[in-house]
Amino acid sequence: MSEVVIAGIGQTPVGEHWDISLRDLALEAIQAALKDAGGLRPQSLFVGNMLAPTLSNQAHLGALISDYAGMTGIEAMTLEASGASGGAALRQGYLAVASGMTDVALVVGVEKFTDTIGSDIEEAIATETDSDFEAMQGLTTTAQAAMLMRRYMHEYNVPVNGFANFPLTAHANGEGNPNAMFRKAIKAETYAKAEPVSPPLNMFDVAPNADGAAALILTRRELVQSIGAKPLVKIAGSASSTDTLAMHDRKDMLFFDTAQVSAGKAMKQAGVVLDQIDFFEYHDVFSIYAALQLEAVGFAIKGQGWKLAESGGIGLNAGAKIPCATMGGMKARGFAGGASGVYQAVEAVNQLRGQAGKNQLAGAKFGLIQSLGGPASTAVSHVLSAA
Amino acid sequence: MSEVVIAGIGQTPVGEHWDISLRDLALEAIQAALKDAGGLRPQSLFVGNMLAPTLSNQAHLGALISDYAGMTGIEAMTLEASGASGGAALRQGYLAVASGMTDVALVVGVEKFTDTIGSDIEEAIATETDSDFEAMQGLTTTAQAAMLMRRYMHEYNVPVNGFANFPLTAHANGEGNPNAMFRKAIKAETYAKAEPVSPPLNMFDVAPNADGAAALILTRRELVQSIGAKPLVKIAGSASSTDTLAMHDRKDMLFFDTAQVSAGKAMKQAGVVLDQIDFFEYHDVFSIYAALQLEAVGFAIKGQGWKLAESGGIGLNAGAKIPCATMGGMKARGFAGGASGVYQAVEAVNQLRGQAGKNQLAGAKFGLIQSLGGPASTAVSHVLSAA
Repeated sequence: MSEVVIAGIGQTPVGEHWDISLRDLALEAIQAALKDAGGLRPQSLFVGNMLAPTLSNQAHLGALISDYAGMTGIEAMTLEASGASGGAALRQGYLAVASGMTDVALVVGVEKFTDTIGSDIEEAIATETDSDFEAMQGLTTTAQAAMLMRRYMHEYNVPVNGFANFPLTAHANGEGNPNAMFRKAIKAETYAKAEPVSPPLNMFDVAPNADGAAALILTRRELVQSIGAKPLVKIAGSASSTDTLAMHDRKDMLFFDTAQVSAGKAMKQAGVVLDQIDFFEYHDVFSIYAALQLEAVGFAIKGQGWKLAESGGIGLNAGAKIPCATMGGMKARGFAGGASGVYQAVEAVNQLRGQAGKNQLAGAKFGLIQSLGGPASTAVSHVLSAA
Repeated sequence: MSEVVIAGIGQTPVGEHWDISLRDLALEAIQAALKDAGGLRPQSLFVGNMLAPTLSNQAHLGALISDYAGMTGIEAMTLEASGASGGAALRQGYLAVASGMTDVALVVGVEKFTDTIGSDIEEAIATETDSDFEAMQGLTTTAQAAMLMRRYMHEYNVPVNGFANFPLTAHANGEGNPNAMFRKAIKAETYAKAEPVSPPLNMFDVAPNADGAAALILTRRELVQSIGAKPLVKIAGSASSTDTLAMHDRKDMLFFDTAQVSAGKAMKQAGVVLDQIDFFEYHDVFSIYAALQLEAVGFAIKGQGWKLAESGGIGLNAGAKIPCATMGGMKARGFAGGASGVYQAVEAVNQLRGQAGKNQLAGAKFGLIQSLGGPASTAVSHVLSAA
């Protein structure tokens, strides 16, 4: 298969965009990506979206968005794998280009949550759980994450506020991201005093549901060299895996198998080991997910993910073991559902291009991004590298 | 890219399966396909589904179905392109195998419409139209098809009952399909006397919304030869295209551009011309769609698709120009949403294997199948051939 590069990126600010429709959000990200790619014209569109049919009364986004973006006639379809929809769209775009089926693919993640009231969003998101055995009992994904966090705290003797450094790091990094929903650092006391959402999760352990769109232009390296769009970032590894949808079917709820498997495969394909990864964009829709991803991927041993965060090991500081959520993550950038996996890629490209502004990591060569559906029922991992 | 073959097929009967859940429908089709494929184990699952998040409160079907089918851990995701979701899933499965990314892919189309009352199904299906400009005005896809048919009748002076032979052919063919929802031929008088649904569409011009699942096992030819699963069918061509989502944005509403473009590309890839196609599985969710597909693909000239049907040119009879809906099509087999495109492939495989029973076409070598989203806002076409 051919070498695939990301030749263009685009994103909208993440937030409550009540005055911008779903299609306009997508268009804004696409136009920015096309401009960034210097004139490449896509033949295929892969849309990552979770809940537009439910929350925006709009299915069939492939035809809608390709037409609205002035690309009527191209191939287009939507990928859905819950919160990992953006990652799934990126993976299919990668595959289309790598296989030679398509010269230039457009990957768009788009989501519009905030036109809907909070409880209805929760109900809609709960369709990502096992509907017949979980959501049917009243389970929401927030409640599910709370139970997971409680169990983790019990098993590993985690003190109250033991997860604080996940949101603290995210919010500190959000300051440097002009597209983040929250661009203000928070203090440890603020976290400690925050209202509970679903104990032990407090307000800062849960990423805000938000609206946004992000876009990528993928092509083969030989095609983009001829038009001079640079610097390029290479998709060095791509992999995806699933686990049981229902938590109660797992042998060990406190280990994210799919995070381990998909990251391992992606790194193997990229020919890198964990020590070579310069930063990790995890799926911190809940703090507990971040801890479990650090452990599954191998940055921390089992039960110690929270300690890695607590000891300052995930920040942008020079001595950090593995900088995470470098542009604010889902906690501070905001959680725009099926767009999230594409935002991760856009942010990683900025790091690898040296265009991450105040949040730039010196000499970053390899980034690992990981998009989850539910509590890692699906995980899609990509290794991006400076090309 | 490698040569991809269909090594196994499975399907459930299509109908009102109030006692079988979505996951059980999928499982039944998968188990049949795995058995048919003689032991091949998939590494990837591509699910075609339109409306499970809305009608069955269940998103994230990739993780759900792979786990329920005993394949926990494999890669899995859902493809959505409205009524063309099944075709889109087949295309992504094809791509995964052709590229070498996956050795064995499982493609499943599944839909469960009839747990929901009719008006709610219509409302849900209307999300495939342009929500802001069409569904918002009260448009349903049935009303949209009625307007399209009225315009066609006006432009081409089609008499009342001019479309009769589409459902008559479908129902006649449904008699020979044990999995069809309707297995009884109808008479011309029955069509002529049928209740209007949305004039000029009558009851027989609209395929029934139904439940069902169909599955395919795809692999590279060299892998399946070693286990002896035969006869094989080859995916000789695969292509997909989109048009405007909203009908009012089209230059010519009475020509299905995407049907032409995707069929043309798939035939070109397969190295065949139209005369070599032995049968055509069209997307006859409405009679008018069937007529417009015959014209767009080239079996009839513009405005004459209905005449091809009226003159007996689409039946199983020896002299027919192009046998269509050979196992009953959507009209008699039933319209199981995102499963439909996969059913088309399963039925085409049966024809090409010589296992189509009473409906077997003598010496069929090439079949064209075409899955539509909305009024050909998306079209996905595949050419299958005896391998």
